[in-house]
Amino acid sequence: MVAAEKTRATHALRPYLPATRDFASGKDSQRAFLDRCLAAIAQHEAEIGAFVHLNIEGARAASDGATERWRKGEALSPIDGMPIGIKDIMETEDMPTELGSPLFTGWRSGRDAAAVRALREAGAVILGKTVTTEFAATEPRGTRNPHDLGRTPGGSSSGSAAAVAAGFLPAALGTQVVGSLLRPASYCGCFGFKPSFGGINRGGSHDGLSQSCTGVIAASLAECWVVAREIVLRIGGDPGHPGIVGPADAVRPTPPQRLAILRTAGWGKASDAAKAAFAAALARLAKRGVAIVDSHADLAAAEAAIADAQSLTKQIDGWEARWPLNVYRDRDATKLSKHMLDRLAAAEALGVEKYRALIAQRAEARRIFAKLAAIADAVVTLSATGAAPIGLDSTGDAIFNVPASFLGVPALSLPVLAESGLPLGLQMIGFAQQDAALFGAAAWVASELSA
Amino acid sequence: MVAAEKTRATHALRPYLPATRDFASGKDSQRAFLDRCLAAIAQHEAEIGAFVHLNIEGARAASDGATERWRKGEALSPIDGMPIGIKDIMETEDMPTELGSPLFTGWRSGRDAAAVRALREAGAVILGKTVTTEFAATEPRGTRNPHDLGRTPGGSSSGSAAAVAAGFLPAALGTQVVGSLLRPASYCGCFGFKPSFGGINRGGSHDGLSQSCTGVIAASLAECWVVAREIVLRIGGDPGHPGIVGPADAVRPTPPQRLAILRTAGWGKASDAAKAAFAAALARLAKRGVAIVDSHADLAAAEAAIADAQSLTKQIDGWEARWPLNVYRDRDATKLSKHMLDRLAAAEALGVEKYRALIAQRAEARRIFAKLAAIADAVVTLSATGAAPIGLDSTGDAIFNVPASFLGVPALSLPVLAESGLPLGLQMIGFAQQDAALFGAAAWVASELSA
Repeated sequence: MVAAEKTRATHALRPYLPATRDFASGKDSQRAFLDRCLAAIAQHEAEIGAFVHLNIEGARAASDGATERWRKGEALSPIDGMPIGIKDIMETEDMPTELGSPLFTGWRSGRDAAAVRALREAGAVILGKTVTTEFAATEPRGTRNPHDLGRTPGGSSSGSAAAVAAGFLPAALGTQVVGSLLRPASYCGCFGFKPSFGGINRGGSHDGLSQSCTGVIAASLAECWVVAREIVLRIGGDPGHPGIVGPADAVRPTPPQRLAILRTAGWGKASDAAKAAFAAALARLAKRGVAIVDSHADLAAAEAAIADAQSLTKQIDGWEARWPLNVYRDRDATKLSKHMLDRLAAAEALGVEKYRALIAQRAEARRIFAKLAAIADAVVTLSATGAAPIGLDSTGDAIFNVPASFLGVPALSLPVLAESGLPLGLQMIGFAQQDAALFGAAAWVASELSA
Repeated sequence: MVAAEKTRATHALRPYLPATRDFASGKDSQRAFLDRCLAAIAQHEAEIGAFVHLNIEGARAASDGATERWRKGEALSPIDGMPIGIKDIMETEDMPTELGSPLFTGWRSGRDAAAVRALREAGAVILGKTVTTEFAATEPRGTRNPHDLGRTPGGSSSGSAAAVAAGFLPAALGTQVVGSLLRPASYCGCFGFKPSFGGINRGGSHDGLSQSCTGVIAASLAECWVVAREIVLRIGGDPGHPGIVGPADAVRPTPPQRLAILRTAGWGKASDAAKAAFAAALARLAKRGVAIVDSHADLAAAEAAIADAQSLTKQIDGWEARWPLNVYRDRDATKLSKHMLDRLAAAEALGVEKYRALIAQRAEARRIFAKLAAIADAVVTLSATGAAPIGLDSTGDAIFNVPASFLGVPALSLPVLAESGLPLGLQMIGFAQQDAALFGAAAWVASELSA
């Protein structure tokens, strides 16, 4: 048992720049890097609980192969040899996929999900499956926040964020349908990337909802980008979507001229300290010449359009998740949480006509939000109402994350704010299919605010 | 062994009107109907090969339950008790799902696909899994055409069409990404319905491509509609799509004022007899007051926009199907057909940038086609180049079917034409999300041409 008192992780976040000369020159090696990750895991995983499964032997072998390729100048990609974690709702050939549900204990699909397959083609080392809440929804599965073991890491990509924060991994895949990438990234002090809807191929990932996206939680913005980019180059986005392809140098800092503040329905729930940290950050950016747009008719219209995003999203997700939850409930209802059963019952009362109205309303909100591209380069808000809440019974409130999910637009959480010494993310939201542009602006903002 | 000479099936197509008074009055019963289906199967399945698996005991029990419900006036839906076949790329709880591939021999997911689940909620009797080509592509799996055992039933929904044509079932689910519903419907003399893209929820169906749709092959237009409608009322369309909901009386004949002829790239490959049958049908409709639009700038633009649809579709599908085929190839390449391996190799040479250009071109074609709604109530063309080709090595040419798939619009094949005494479909193509309107027009056309 781990005491619930604050036990700050001692690992500094370690930016992993796989294409640096260290690897090419042989001063460092992919295998040596993996071994440092494994050492951190051996030391801290028991108290953090970021993983459901590890394939250490497989990772060592893959890492040795990568080390050899880098030595010969034959690296498969910039992420050849990068240890990566996979949220446990994505299928892996060599490890079970348990979806955070006792209904799937030990289940093996026998195949890699599309994104996992692409990562392996790029040489990445698939080290383990990271803890997810039940079916990537809200029921927590015990992972602790490395910055304070008595606090939640957030969810549903709980293990991915905790593993990166603890220095177990430089990057991990997660998914977000409401706030499952950006909230844990904020609570754990990582960078989090929720792509434009459809940005990363979800084949073999059990998150087929209409707002759901595969994304990346990483120790640096560069890693968020390079991991996403290398996947999409090999397997594309969802079928019918262009996928988030952009230049390798998308993270070159590009000062935004105008940033618009979107307070969202979360503002009323945010702590005073969080609001103060946000205001201070914006003031610094303003001082550096960024025009802060805080009052505009189009901005007010966007706020109104997303005011009910959390409730609308809950209804949309519920209807869409009805299958396969109804099948699973009939198989063994005792293996679903009460929350999940309640959600299913609500969905069964909704009906397809109501659902059509909901997605029509969402489409209208997207049209309204898109107009903001004319008045700002990106939108900024908080990533969470404050630092990670105390306790492991809840993964916290996604209210600040739901707008980008609802709108289908790219969003990043930058670990540049703090509350009482604990991490807090600044969220930047971009425009549909403009993920690369968002990274450029975010790289500049992160650099300015970290300086 | 079955001789390859012409052996016309003796079963007349039997319209199954589940909500008729026969069931309600007790003069006929769901169970008696099922028994007639089972008798036809016992007599002819050995020579036709429409099924991969049958669950006869389960079907009898389900049918008895439905019979009892109808007797009590407590039928769950108009299709309560309707025996239905499921293309073997959709998961079923009680039967294996083998995807037409030796890689999946005996594979059981242990759950029902979304559409199957909805059918069971509506009381439908899931009688069996129907033969599909390998992964719903082109490699045939031996099913014979009930109208001539020496001919292909078409593909990839081979078993679904053959089962309906043979009187084994009143309706079966199929899927179409190129021409896999309408071509077999045409060859087998059934009604075939390919919905607007996203129209029927594909959860648990292994056809995630961006043109792929679940649809219905049935012995009547009414059954195509009622089966689709009852599914969508319960589980909706694909996540994020409105689904094809419309009134129960969508099949009330509604005379179209204008029908536009789209010759498509298929015209040059169509037989003279097929073209003559088409011309004769159109002449009959013109005589009944329908204006036939055969020359218009917007029509010419649409023809140009779809001229390369077959090649474009092949490239789009190939890229999208790359995963999981690459995973399966690496597992055991000897269990994939040469065609499938060639297709995968071509996709691996394509690249995401080329894919983006392809789907952008497709989006433009959709915009151009949509303009036709201003000049016609629906578009008409052939469903196939002619009657089913002789031989079982190929499932025929999908060139007349690819436009509706490429355009994402609803399409129906009506068994109202013939070539040398063999069935040939008249295809009617509608506009996106206007599936119900297409049914109304098609009901009138089918009635006029069958009179």
